[in-house]
Amino acid sequence: VATIPEVVAAYDAAWNEPDATERRRLLERSFAEDGVLIEPRGRFDGREAVLERIAGFSERFPGARVVLTSGVDEHHGFMRYAWTIVGADGSALLEGIDFAELGSDGRLRRVIMFFGPLPGKE
Amino acid sequence: VATIPEVVAAYDAAWNEPDATERRRLLERSFAEDGVLIEPRGRFDGREAVLERIAGFSERFPGARVVLTSGVDEHHGFMRYAWTIVGADGSALLEGIDFAELGSDGRLRRVIMFFGPLPGKE
Repeated sequence: VATIPEVVAAYDAAWNEPDATERRRLLERSFAEDGVLIEPRGRFDGREAVLERIAGFSERFPGARVVLTSGVDEHHGFMRYAWTIVGADGSALLEGIDFAELGSDGRLRRVIMFFGPLPGKE
Repeated sequence: VATIPEVVAAYDAAWNEPDATERRRLLERSFAEDGVLIEPRGRFDGREAVLERIAGFSERFPGARVVLTSGVDEHHGFMRYAWTIVGADGSALLEGIDFAELGSDGRLRRVIMFFGPLPGKE
């Protein structure tokens, strides 16, 4: 049985895996079949849609990697952790935070992405 | 119809309202009757349970206030915002971040609290 940090690490590794078969294997380990990924500008329902999303990322940003920049803070099956997308040249392209929920099978069932720092007080 | 920042402001004001009747009114405006609040060390199901939780906070920390320290970052009905609990003497007691979901009635249906800064990378 994978620990929560291992599940998040496998999910992150799926974003960074160039081989489609291995990418699917990593996502099968870490992301529920009916899980959902919600980004600021898109929603991806089901593991297959998330696999397509990740394939699109690696096509659009060849050589880029999603690097986890914090540990995983978890309680009651809810998680938060930070990441940075690092381009092929080593520059930071985007930072963000995921807020995620674990399903009863120990895999991610919902990941909500937020981009950039928190907005300033209004 | 309240905007999302208004809903979050009313929810925050409920934490800071000493009068029980007004506190209930603020929470009725901002938090769904069957909404849930999940903290690192507790889960409160339904608006009534959250009202009791808030009453316990104001009894335990008389004069303390929950001050929003960021704007509300929202997409697809999911929100994040930061807060600090400021004691009666003006000192910061705790900082944290809420991840929240809006229900179809425009009120908060789920608030997940995280305390402190993100943990360091493992």
